[in-house]
Amino acid sequence: MKKVAVIMGSDSDLPVVEKAFGVFERFSVPFEVRVLSAHRTPAEAMDFAAHAAENGFGVIIAAAGMAAHLAGALAANTVLPVIGIPVKSGALGGMDALLSTVQMPSGIPVATVAIDGAKNAAYLAAEILALSDADLGGKLLAARREDAALVLKKNAAIQSQYRV
Amino acid sequence: MKKVAVIMGSDSDLPVVEKAFGVFERFSVPFEVRVLSAHRTPAEAMDFAAHAAENGFGVIIAAAGMAAHLAGALAANTVLPVIGIPVKSGALGGMDALLSTVQMPSGIPVATVAIDGAKNAAYLAAEILALSDADLGGKLLAARREDAALVLKKNAAIQSQYRV
Amino acid sequence: MKKVAVIMGSDSDLPVVEKAFGVFERFSVPFEVRVLSAHRTPAEAMDFAAHAAENGFGVIIAAAGMAAHLAGALAANTVLPVIGIPVKSGALGGMDALLSTVQMPSGIPVATVAIDGAKNAAYLAAEILALSDADLGGKLLAARREDAALVLKKNAAIQSQYRV
Amino acid sequence: MKKVAVIMGSDSDLPVVEKAFGVFERFSVPFEVRVLSAHRTPAEAMDFAAHAAENGFGVIIAAAGMAAHLAGALAANTVLPVIGIPVKSGALGGMDALLSTVQMPSGIPVATVAIDGAKNAAYLAAEILALSDADLGGKLLAARREDAALVLKKNAAIQSQYRV
Amino acid sequence: MKKVAVIMGSDSDLPVVEKAFGVFERFSVPFEVRVLSAHRTPAEAMDFAAHAAENGFGVIIAAAGMAAHLAGALAANTVLPVIGIPVKSGALGGMDALLSTVQMPSGIPVATVAIDGAKNAAYLAAEILALSDADLGGKLLAARREDAALVLKKNAAIQSQYRV
Amino acid sequence: MKKVAVIMGSDSDLPVVEKAFGVFERFSVPFEVRVLSAHRTPAEAMDFAAHAAENGFGVIIAAAGMAAHLAGALAANTVLPVIGIPVKSGALGGMDALLSTVQMPSGIPVATVAIDGAKNAAYLAAEILALSDADLGGKLLAARREDAALVLKKNAAIQSQYRV
Amino acid sequence: MKKVAVIMGSDSDLPVVEKAFGVFERFSVPFEVRVLSAHRTPAEAMDFAAHAAENGFGVIIAAAGMAAHLAGALAANTVLPVIGIPVKSGALGGMDALLSTVQMPSGIPVATVAIDGAKNAAYLAAEILALSDADLGGKLLAARREDAALVLKKNAAIQSQYRV
Amino acid sequence: MKKVAVIMGSDSDLPVVEKAFGVFERFSVPFEVRVLSAHRTPAEAMDFAAHAAENGFGVIIAAAGMAAHLAGALAANTVLPVIGIPVKSGALGGMDALLSTVQMPSGIPVATVAIDGAKNAAYLAAEILALSDADLGGKLLAARREDAALVLKKNAAIQSQYRV
Repeated sequence: MKKVAVIMGSDSDLPVVEKAFGVFERFSVPFEVRVLSAHRTPAEAMDFAAHAAENGFGVIIAAAGMAAHLAGALAANTVLPVIGIPVKSGALGGMDALLSTVQMPSGIPVATVAIDGAKNAAYLAAEILALSDADLGGKLLAARREDAALVLKKNAAIQSQYRV
Repeated sequence: MKKVAVIMGSDSDLPVVEKAFGVFERFSVPFEVRVLSAHRTPAEAMDFAAHAAENGFGVIIAAAGMAAHLAGALAANTVLPVIGIPVKSGALGGMDALLSTVQMPSGIPVATVAIDGAKNAAYLAAEILALSDADLGGKLLAARREDAALVLKKNAAIQSQYRV
Repeated sequence: MKKVAVIMGSDSDLPVVEKAFGVFERFSVPFEVRVLSAHRTPAEAMDFAAHAAENGFGVIIAAAGMAAHLAGALAANTVLPVIGIPVKSGALGGMDALLSTVQMPSGIPVATVAIDGAKNAAYLAAEILALSDADLGGKLLAARREDAALVLKKNAAIQSQYRV
Repeated sequence: MKKVAVIMGSDSDLPVVEKAFGVFERFSVPFEVRVLSAHRTPAEAMDFAAHAAENGFGVIIAAAGMAAHLAGALAANTVLPVIGIPVKSGALGGMDALLSTVQMPSGIPVATVAIDGAKNAAYLAAEILALSDADLGGKLLAARREDAALVLKKNAAIQSQYRV
Repeated sequence: MKKVAVIMGSDSDLPVVEKAFGVFERFSVPFEVRVLSAHRTPAEAMDFAAHAAENGFGVIIAAAGMAAHLAGALAANTVLPVIGIPVKSGALGGMDALLSTVQMPSGIPVATVAIDGAKNAAYLAAEILALSDADLGGKLLAARREDAALVLKKNAAIQSQYRV
Repeated sequence: MKKVAVIMGSDSDLPVVEKAFGVFERFSVPFEVRVLSAHRTPAEAMDFAAHAAENGFGVIIAAAGMAAHLAGALAANTVLPVIGIPVKSGALGGMDALLSTVQMPSGIPVATVAIDGAKNAAYLAAEILALSDADLGGKLLAARREDAALVLKKNAAIQSQYRV
Repeated sequence: MKKVAVIMGSDSDLPVVEKAFGVFERFSVPFEVRVLSAHRTPAEAMDFAAHAAENGFGVIIAAAGMAAHLAGALAANTVLPVIGIPVKSGALGGMDALLSTVQMPSGIPVATVAIDGAKNAAYLAAEILALSDADLGGKLLAARREDAALVLKKNAAIQSQYRV
Repeated sequence: MKKVAVIMGSDSDLPVVEKAFGVFERFSVPFEVRVLSAHRTPAEAMDFAAHAAENGFGVIIAAAGMAAHLAGALAANTVLPVIGIPVKSGALGGMDALLSTVQMPSGIPVATVAIDGAKNAAYLAAEILALSDADLGGKLLAARREDAALVLKKNAAIQSQYRV
């Protein structure tokens, strides 16, 4: 299976980003992690994206806050799918990062997930890789059923607690 | 190649959505179009998503405005990658549709593109399908070079026009 | 009297939602509580709404955060009045949930109350049920007078404290 | 059947509000229309609300723009369900009217619909009245099926137009 | 001198509102304080405003949060100047209260100050009363000079601390 | 009677500002108009404010758009009441001007009215001047009654048009 | 004198950007214009910035809309001052471009001007270059006086027109 | 080398502003600090700006919160480059200060950095002064390389920690 690259713009984003790792482990999706900044290490970020496909990556996840250019800067240098996680930081609650990530110009898409939505970035990466991996697809379907069962179990508990 | 499904919540979204079709044609990506509403035809929307994989679809694109639940409602019923296009309509310029599409709970991701970003939804779908189609990947890379060349051509014209 | 159904999208919404229960108890309005997710248990949510009327419910209250689709998903499957409580959660202070709940398309209304406005959801449900229950209507009027008296009592205390 | 009162804060709101009237006519819901301002005719607005129930009204719909206090001012003087329509007007696209209508304090609920959502205000009023009028409930269900059929008809047309 | 009335919509607004009292005391402006709600005690609020002038008040200050209708409701029943303080409370940081207070329709003005700006409400009231009280005007001018001197004293300290 | 000064930051604000003039004429309030910019003519703006009281002005109205500093800059140089009109211009619909006008620091109040609310600025100025001019106060009360009568007349027309 | 580089992300930004050119001509500031996209021509954009200083440029102005990364991408590759113009385009009125431009991480500043503020970008560039060009500084001061005189001339016209 | 002036509107802004001082020390840029308020000490603020150039300053940095007029008020009285730091304070998270600082009218530019972006204000000032100080330019380039090396070092640590 192709690997997922998880790039964060600053190591201070790790507490947000690492929530993705459990998802990868649940589905046995191989991943690598890097700290690369669109602004502080632009050449290295560009270089990583340009060679990601040949280095065995299938999907790139990029997490950044404030004027979050990282996902876009990577997407500009690869045709691999790039998933953007807007990170909540600074004064504006992540709205700046969300708009900086999602409002990309035509031709250079970034698949944006919720603010601090690292788990869903991982789920989305897994769904993409599952298109050519039936086994992974089966695991994802099974996980959906497990997650639904968990909600229904909580429902049963609460429903009986408040039964009039 | 697997097909892309383009679902719009209302036929009034067609002028936005149809900008995706030229991208599909540029890259010879097969696609089908439907009008299904998360609110007016919830059973049919759910049913479409639940059987999309077995019906030959690899990616689902959903476009909706205002309280844009369509992408999320489809994503809740499939593990195929679902791409959401928030459509500008009504009083709030698409901000309502953007937040309704992107702020999904963990486990049910929607790959969100810009407001009215139908072209990028198509590019993203093509990038996803290209992971298992080297020929499509080559076309995407070539298109990037063509688009860059077009910018540089415009640059040459403007640069010489304003040379001091 | 018909019952009120209180549905929350996640059991983490309980601290917000349970503020409604005291209102129901004040007015002896029968209610039931459930955890059903528009995204994690879409079939069960749809099923609940489709049979709510025949199961003795008169009003459905739905509470959800972020891309809050729950109220709309329930409303799409019933013609009972559905009241939506946008829940504050995540990075955007509930603005995402408010817009996702209130900006519904024509034909599928959701009666939206304030962010985290569980008490008012309960008052509104009681007002609706009181249309065919004069006794409940009387209790609501009496409560208004009690609440006003409480304000006036506080007013008397503060007014005399700061008399110049 | 009890009547629906439609109150607008200014006669300039009529083009928005009158979209509700067709819905009432579709379902044979009796309604009356008035122009009453929370700010310019506060006594008359308060008086209308205080006597609405005894004058045969079951639901009050209030439409206002900017600092839209009308729905709240009416709700403060009745325990009938009050539905608020935030009207888009002035510089802020109706966001001011939305927040002024929906963010009500505990005890005085306003059932808020989308900005300029007059149709849904009417649908919601009909749903409320249908709780004690099975015939109206049947009409609402039938209308849902008709509206769904219309979407599916459009779907069939667009689906075949773009079949690859 | 005419008195200033300070009305708060809820006694929970007291910590914000009481910052005004020190300003009144600094300038010997007589004031009275009340708790009156536009929604919970609408008749008493209306009645207060309607008789405020004859009861010796010259300016009314109203503080309220969320869908802050109080200032507007008072202004609708008097031609005394009404100053509105939007109070930060609930999920939206006071933006709801600000828009509900400031975006008044023509003919019924509310002089709005900053969110939680109780001090400035008091300064503004004093400036208004000073138009017919030269002594108060002199105190206000002197206070300006004192406040400026305080800034300049702090400036001298910081300037010398960081002199290079 | 003291005069009202109407200051606009740019002569392009005249179409907004001149709506105030009719209000002044309705109530025979003397006024003067000036174009002074906080940024382009800061010394003249400061000078005007500093001498406004001695030049016979009782209230200053300031209208400006974008980073609207004018009202604050005038308020910083006088203890006369200063009313700020945020003007809608540029890309942000007047939200920038509203926040730049209303969010003043303690000690320097600006009485802010709605975006483009020139009429209410004039009403507010008249209410302030009426505190020491009983005749003007009487006119304001009479105008309220006339305006209410106009609403009630429109109400009568619409009410009978839609009587079921 | 060093030159100013004006870079736009798309030739569709020219109508906004060209408002800067008149300012350069007023002050005889040499400038060059280019179209370079952070996303479509990332290598060329990076290359331009990296060599701008040695190519005789002293200031770089970058204009871009939506997820406006251009100014930041240039700033990441030079220590010349970079001025960012957020361009209004798409659904969000330029708020996306403003936040994407101004909210830069520490170490890589972008001097941001108003949305569509091309003229002020040019004035700011001129002010920067004037630090080492006393003649240019003199022209800027003279221009300030001319602009102020123009405002005062308009003031004189309007002041006399509305003299009471 | 010319000095940088750092002006804060209130000494409560010092914790934000002082983050700039370390940057100045890193690059041996001379600076002075002052507390001057556009509203509380308008004459002194204006006077400072008017004489800043002749007093040896090359760049002015101004930090203020809420209706942040300070940078604009200084810019109105000098043709030196003025850098504005919007400070987060009060209820709106600094959005009010950002818009009050950046949305300046044509002719009076303010180079705006991120909310609380004091470090970048200092970097920008250094970049401006480096245009006529090759030594400072060299230090800035070296710092960029050091900062990049730091990111790459963190990258190496995290990359190896999570290697699959």
